[in-house]
Amino acid sequence: MFQHIKVVGRGRVGAAVHGRLLERGLAAQDLFHPPDLHNPPDLVLLCVPDPEIARVASQTSLGPWIAHVSGATPLSALAPHTRRFTIHPLQTFTTRRGPEQLDGAWAAVSAESAQARDRGFWLAETLGLRPFELADESRVLYHAGAAVASNYLVTLHRAAAHLLARAGAPPEALLPLMQRTIDNGFELTGPIARGDWSAVERHVAAIAAGAPELEALYVALARATKP
Amino acid sequence: MFQHIKVVGRGRVGAAVHGRLLERGLAAQDLFHPPDLHNPPDLVLLCVPDPEIARVASQTSLGPWIAHVSGATPLSALAPHTRRFTIHPLQTFTTRRGPEQLDGAWAAVSAESAQARDRGFWLAETLGLRPFELADESRVLYHAGAAVASNYLVTLHRAAAHLLARAGAPPEALLPLMQRTIDNGFELTGPIARGDWSAVERHVAAIAAGAPELEALYVALARATKP
Repeated sequence: MFQHIKVVGRGRVGAAVHGRLLERGLAAQDLFHPPDLHNPPDLVLLCVPDPEIARVASQTSLGPWIAHVSGATPLSALAPHTRRFTIHPLQTFTTRRGPEQLDGAWAAVSAESAQARDRGFWLAETLGLRPFELADESRVLYHAGAAVASNYLVTLHRAAAHLLARAGAPPEALLPLMQRTIDNGFELTGPIARGDWSAVERHVAAIAAGAPELEALYVALARATKP
Repeated sequence: MFQHIKVVGRGRVGAAVHGRLLERGLAAQDLFHPPDLHNPPDLVLLCVPDPEIARVASQTSLGPWIAHVSGATPLSALAPHTRRFTIHPLQTFTTRRGPEQLDGAWAAVSAESAQARDRGFWLAETLGLRPFELADESRVLYHAGAAVASNYLVTLHRAAAHLLARAGAPPEALLPLMQRTIDNGFELTGPIARGDWSAVERHVAAIAAGAPELEALYVALARATKP
């Protein structure tokens, strides 16, 4: 479908995507691919920070297809281009790993035509991702969900580790617990599952005394857990 | 150290603990172990709900050691017994699995003497757990941390799945993302890691419009994530 994809940006996502496209023979090595007057791309894939997408898109020559990999940025940021789509890998990336980070993750594809949607799906599958379609106007709500699942999982772990450290317990002891919570399909156990709200009240009192900076977060989480 | 352990209670934890002690030849099958007048236990291990510990302990004959497996309940709940300790497996248990659920999890041991502490550590290791010592007065703070890591991870997943469903995206797409967040050592990525607070504000606006019941939780999590 595409034969020559130009990846713009080598951040966490751009490096993994470019590496995978190199493996597939669909992108050129950076060294041999400066401005490249000879072999124009048929897709320009913007892996730049969200606030730069509109500027970079507006400076990209019309002709090839164009796409971005941002979760929350609308398709209209790719104006004036009209042959466009977006593909957001629903994954967290580290610079310590390579293209295999894409394997098995899902990808949200937004498009304004069947032609564009097919290209987004093709690219996702070519990258090793499992595509699903996402309405352009739902992207921000979707991306908020992704942030809750990933970024705020980091926050949750930090908060729990802080409480254990304050209690004199080893924070690394949390890892088998959190892993098993996922492995057990997020089955709720513990005080709230048993309807033991007095235990929750004792937690709040202990946090107010021992780690008051976490009280508001704990209370918000307990309230959201209430059946 | 102990040769005959009587497990009281067959809930999620009690069933796994009893099963493991059976494997080790340290407990008797329930069928052959009614009141048991012939072979008195040298340890009575209470795996009953937290609010019942004090009552069951007070009704247990003095003589053998006694312990409970609650996270937040103090040692004093075991009165009038003085040969006592507590051992809390830092794990979430399901009735669908067996004693292998204990393997690799950590365990908080509280005790008032070296003798009691040694017994708690021995029992933890016998069960397949990795023991650490926890001050009795720090148990509630510790248990609040455990609840944040496990129970509120369930809450976090539900909230994220709800946002994805509202956006028309498949909630199962969150699983590789959450798993990788753990595998990457809880490295923070996403808008807040990039300092992009305008993205966070757009999230809040989208949640207020599309899933207002989650706005308070999202805001509390974002605030707690602020560097």
